[in-house]
Amino acid sequence: MEITNKLIYSYLDHLECGRCQREYDAGVPQGLCECGAPLLARYDLARVAAAVAPADFRDRPASLWRYHELLPVSKEESVVTFGEGMTPLLPMTEVGRQMGLPRLLMKDEGLLPTGSFKARGAAVGVSRARELGVRRIAMPTNGNAGAAWAVYAARAGIEALIAMPTDAPAITRAECAISGARLYLVDGLINDAGAMIAEAVRAQGYFDSSTLKEPYRLEGKKTMGLELFEQLGWRVPDVILYPTGGGVGLIGIHKALQECREMGWIGEKMPRLVSVQASGCAPIVRAWQNGDEVSQAWAEATTVAFGINVPKALGDFMILSALRATQGCAVAVDDEEILRAQARVGRLEGAFICPEGAACFAAAERLRQQGWIDEGEEVVVLNTGAGVKYPETVVVSVPTLSRGDTIPMP
Amino acid sequence: MEITNKLIYSYLDHLECGRCQREYDAGVPQGLCECGAPLLARYDLARVAAAVAPADFRDRPASLWRYHELLPVSKEESVVTFGEGMTPLLPMTEVGRQMGLPRLLMKDEGLLPTGSFKARGAAVGVSRARELGVRRIAMPTNGNAGAAWAVYAARAGIEALIAMPTDAPAITRAECAISGARLYLVDGLINDAGAMIAEAVRAQGYFDSSTLKEPYRLEGKKTMGLELFEQLGWRVPDVILYPTGGGVGLIGIHKALQECREMGWIGEKMPRLVSVQASGCAPIVRAWQNGDEVSQAWAEATTVAFGINVPKALGDFMILSALRATQGCAVAVDDEEILRAQARVGRLEGAFICPEGAACFAAAERLRQQGWIDEGEEVVVLNTGAGVKYPETVVVSVPTLSRGDTIPMP
Repeated sequence: MEITNKLIYSYLDHLECGRCQREYDAGVPQGLCECGAPLLARYDLARVAAAVAPADFRDRPASLWRYHELLPVSKEESVVTFGEGMTPLLPMTEVGRQMGLPRLLMKDEGLLPTGSFKARGAAVGVSRARELGVRRIAMPTNGNAGAAWAVYAARAGIEALIAMPTDAPAITRAECAISGARLYLVDGLINDAGAMIAEAVRAQGYFDSSTLKEPYRLEGKKTMGLELFEQLGWRVPDVILYPTGGGVGLIGIHKALQECREMGWIGEKMPRLVSVQASGCAPIVRAWQNGDEVSQAWAEATTVAFGINVPKALGDFMILSALRATQGCAVAVDDEEILRAQARVGRLEGAFICPEGAACFAAAERLRQQGWIDEGEEVVVLNTGAGVKYPETVVVSVPTLSRGDTIPMP
Repeated sequence: MEITNKLIYSYLDHLECGRCQREYDAGVPQGLCECGAPLLARYDLARVAAAVAPADFRDRPASLWRYHELLPVSKEESVVTFGEGMTPLLPMTEVGRQMGLPRLLMKDEGLLPTGSFKARGAAVGVSRARELGVRRIAMPTNGNAGAAWAVYAARAGIEALIAMPTDAPAITRAECAISGARLYLVDGLINDAGAMIAEAVRAQGYFDSSTLKEPYRLEGKKTMGLELFEQLGWRVPDVILYPTGGGVGLIGIHKALQECREMGWIGEKMPRLVSVQASGCAPIVRAWQNGDEVSQAWAEATTVAFGINVPKALGDFMILSALRATQGCAVAVDDEEILRAQARVGRLEGAFICPEGAACFAAAERLRQQGWIDEGEEVVVLNTGAGVKYPETVVVSVPTLSRGDTIPMP
């Protein structure tokens, strides 16, 4: 008999409620805790720390799967991938100079499959769902998450049911359509789409992959933090600004911080996490200002940064808790500021960022002006998607020439 | 006095005409050879081979700049980057199975900045142009190249003048606009735009960055080949299919092959290079079938794969020479086949590819059916861009629900 020693791919141990700490079996598909709160994946961190050291990651492929010990997928063969992860961390020298933030960096999530950071959650969520035997998933979306889950589901051979507001970026419809998802448009907001999906989950037997209603999308988003710390040489910046809709990325970065601290991979210093919202939909900002532990649904939500047009986030209490724990804050910027920041980053740096990412640049400038950020601090903005998915945010007014015409002098 | 030993960043030696072999100084901005043919960058390959070995690249950052010894930029500080390169090489298992090509792979260039492989040429071309003191560039484009050069130019602080056909993908206008390029639309084809740019170069003092009219875009495209060989463990596949407009990527891959062979980094085996065109614009295919060494301009060119709608390529003789040297071939597929292949790859793999990439899948299937490719052969398709830049290629016809509606049973 031949013995082959196979290394452990994941140190996932169990699931734990983010509110009441009740524990659940991670070996079967799970939804919310009985108390209604999201479940969090818990790992045997002592064994992870014994098995792998920060310096080991350098030799691994440049994808988020390099952190597989801290991800929930138990076997490498279960991974469904389009090569996602290790997005660049870029100095924003000119914009930073104008904003009085010489150490301004942007992590550009537009370079992920489907052109948005939603690919992280979809890659990990779909891989784990398939591994656990899920054959059909359903979810509401503001566009990019649905597109990402649709394409990863298609690659995994899983059926996807997606519902999105009619105002979601049009290109995300095409992504769902080409990957064969069942797609419905909803004349309403994401919460309206969510109610329809909840009903379809009950009546039609889909697995509910809505934001934070299953535990593994968060694990994918967590890798934004892991990559950032590794790219900075296993240390943290002073401030991280994150455009907050459902808030999974911010919760994920906070979770990455806690896990890395517990394993001694980073020091004791915490980056201040900033939740950025649009003034047309700012439930987290309002709750933060009121000192509340949960948010209230925002009425008549509207913003050009459609990805953060989320009136009420299931994980609001975890977002607010992360802001408090890191001495961060929550800031709202209006659509005009968002579009101005997007244009400025384009002109000065060439980067075509999404409106949600632009909101973070506007917020960074505001916080600098208010003195909440010091000039010498290292500030990381998360650009959560590629601007090319938002053609309507750019006004193009250019001349058309006919054959034989000459390009005029400038 | 303190002595610091600084390693050599680039082994660029001189420029050489691709047709008449006349040599030129690489230390100043250069255009075409006096004979009218493109200039090629030549390196001191013996010194490169002495300075770096294939295994060394593994420890370097996951960007195309890891191959800096074989790139023309002389100092790391000159690099203008958005983190481009090391795009994933993905197994296309289901599509491959249906096509009788179990070893089908796709290199997904949609994960580059600006969502297209044009970022490679722009990153290297703009970096070198700035290093040589160029302050203003001009070029015609079918959309994606202009967008890429516009955004890299903005990051470099270089002015860009871009002319593109009105039929070019609309999103590329937004990319030029947001990065502050001077953009003109042309009611015609890329050759018409090219004539206007040539005039503006003469009259307005721009540096001509048109396809192959400067030597360094090609060097950026070359990295597609270098990455592919490295990703395969420094060996080559049996067949590489490339959608051919101006053909710079194919010429670049061939150049990478020659350089790597000369340095002993890969064996003697050559992959067969396949030039894929659309039947509505197939000058290279016609020349190949006629056994010609150059192509004739294609009249009334039209195809849904707009990136390869190039009636006459300046480097046609180098494309045809590369096909001959590698025992490759040239294949034309029609628009219907292209859109069918795009839909199939989306449905079976989840990948939303561009029509130019889809043309290569259609061609691979045809060549398999004809027996030109054997079942056991390893076949690499280059998907040159993200499908999200081509919303018009996907028909989306889905129901809209109102608040209170129920998602119907499937």
